[in-house]
Amino acid sequence: MSELRKDPVTGRWVIISTERQKRQADFQREPVVLTPDPSCPLCEGHEQMTHHEVLAVRHNGSGPDQPGWDLRVVPNQVPVLRVEGALDRQGEGLFDKMNGIGAHEVIIESPRHTDSLASMPDEGIERVLWAARERMEDLQRDRRFRYIILFKNHGAAAGASMGHSYSQLIAVPIVPREVRDEVDGARAHFAVKERCVFCDVLRQETRDGQRLVAENADVVAMTPYASRSPFEMWMLPRRHAAHFTTAPRHEYASLARLLGDVLRRMNRALESPPYNLLIHTAPLVEAVEECYHWHVEIVPKLAKVSGLEWATGLYVNPTSPEEAAEVLREARG
Amino acid sequence: MSELRKDPVTGRWVIISTERQKRQADFQREPVVLTPDPSCPLCEGHEQMTHHEVLAVRHNGSGPDQPGWDLRVVPNQVPVLRVEGALDRQGEGLFDKMNGIGAHEVIIESPRHTDSLASMPDEGIERVLWAARERMEDLQRDRRFRYIILFKNHGAAAGASMGHSYSQLIAVPIVPREVRDEVDGARAHFAVKERCVFCDVLRQETRDGQRLVAENADVVAMTPYASRSPFEMWMLPRRHAAHFTTAPRHEYASLARLLGDVLRRMNRALESPPYNLLIHTAPLVEAVEECYHWHVEIVPKLAKVSGLEWATGLYVNPTSPEEAAEVLREARG
Repeated sequence: MSELRKDPVTGRWVIISTERQKRQADFQREPVVLTPDPSCPLCEGHEQMTHHEVLAVRHNGSGPDQPGWDLRVVPNQVPVLRVEGALDRQGEGLFDKMNGIGAHEVIIESPRHTDSLASMPDEGIERVLWAARERMEDLQRDRRFRYIILFKNHGAAAGASMGHSYSQLIAVPIVPREVRDEVDGARAHFAVKERCVFCDVLRQETRDGQRLVAENADVVAMTPYASRSPFEMWMLPRRHAAHFTTAPRHEYASLARLLGDVLRRMNRALESPPYNLLIHTAPLVEAVEECYHWHVEIVPKLAKVSGLEWATGLYVNPTSPEEAAEVLREARG
Repeated sequence: MSELRKDPVTGRWVIISTERQKRQADFQREPVVLTPDPSCPLCEGHEQMTHHEVLAVRHNGSGPDQPGWDLRVVPNQVPVLRVEGALDRQGEGLFDKMNGIGAHEVIIESPRHTDSLASMPDEGIERVLWAARERMEDLQRDRRFRYIILFKNHGAAAGASMGHSYSQLIAVPIVPREVRDEVDGARAHFAVKERCVFCDVLRQETRDGQRLVAENADVVAMTPYASRSPFEMWMLPRRHAAHFTTAPRHEYASLARLLGDVLRRMNRALESPPYNLLIHTAPLVEAVEECYHWHVEIVPKLAKVSGLEWATGLYVNPTSPEEAAEVLREARG
């Protein structure tokens, strides 16, 4: 029999439909294959094809927007929001709008076209985390912004428009809806229990073990109890903190190590699937230090979202998180 | 410059990113082509390949589960939820779950494999609406159910698992999250204004006109102000009512007529795209008669959902609803 499970943070119900159970062999396969592309604007030597870099990790002596780098951050060529201008909040009768003010940056994770987070050394991943932190700290000085989104689309089926490995930062003047729901849920839990709901989840999951994928001294990777899609994963720092930017150096190192491990497990178990990776961190101007807990979500794209999910937000997941965790635990390199 | 717009019902913000504006020619194209399939279990003559019908519109003299029908409703072969059993609500430490109790039925919209809603006569569409109403009225007698979802996936890219034209009904013992948000938003609007927010939208949009697609005496089709995806459409009955099942006969006839018209416009303008169609109706056991307003949502699948949407619920829409409405108004047959 299938089960309805409730996410302890947002209160969202999902259907774990074991009757439709699929082994990982049954999923649609669109393995991400990285092939060289001589015209890629993100490759080393093509610095003139992007906007001027706002941050770079460079070898000694190399100048801005020149070859000789390990990582670059540049404004997006086709930004969804722009920094220049005023918000100009206004109504249109019943409706509310404001100008598309924000920032949209691209973190170019490697100078080489065929690198990916899973194939990079741990230091390469750590460099990406540090660059994200540095850019977020800079962007959050702009008091118009309420939230900074850090996400990655890996593979065309996950929304990537280029083959080269990159992440995106978007600063927005509103708190997006999924973040709102998570923060409100965490706040409600804290109001009743005087505890962080994510810390509670961590405690229960590390004791229970059936949904654990991998862990180290600072970070735990697990499949969430109410997983919306097959092989969804959360990575939580053991130490409570609301903001990604406040993590100490050793936590980034631990997260980088575990993230590489987990992505390689996923590649082995699911044949290098497209995926989305997202950092959930607290809104900028809300007092949620005690109740919110930053974390990473990884979602391989194995199934199409249907009208049911779109209409209702009720996800049907054909693979139980317990089975997914077992498969990923066994997919050690 | 792009715009941030707020949905007046749910409060969800979207980015209408005119800088990324795409004409309909630029979207990914996966036209839905209906080709005969001799092994299709939903075709006339293959009644033994489905479960026993729970409802059918039959020609005089034809027996149940025999040929001679215009429409059949059967239980889903691989249901996501089952009717038999008890909910058995329980905790697992921090977590909450219940058994996967519910109903999952398939409305086979035509005996012919290559029919679609857009190619059917209006009476064929009306028959589907009436069948949905009849099944919903039956299912809502089961007091365990809190909501009945009626949706359609057209084309594999929209989640359809079969080529034959069908819709699905799922009765669930919870109120799904998107419905919860809509109902709470409508309730909040009513608490402040003593008016239905959907009636307010209808009034403003019919006066304003720039987002109108088509209308008749009973139903209005429009592109919503804060459209999440290109060419998203809403169809609202002019008469206020919370429940789809309470509509008078002439409203179903008018909806069928307008739905056929709108789907044909979409096929002409966007080359027969895959789409999801959803009926939003009120939850079963809540007093929302005054504040909620049933309606239909149609969403062509023209773009992939990326990590941004998944992570944050913040949709970036490259086509303004004003432009989409204009294109659809001009796509008259």
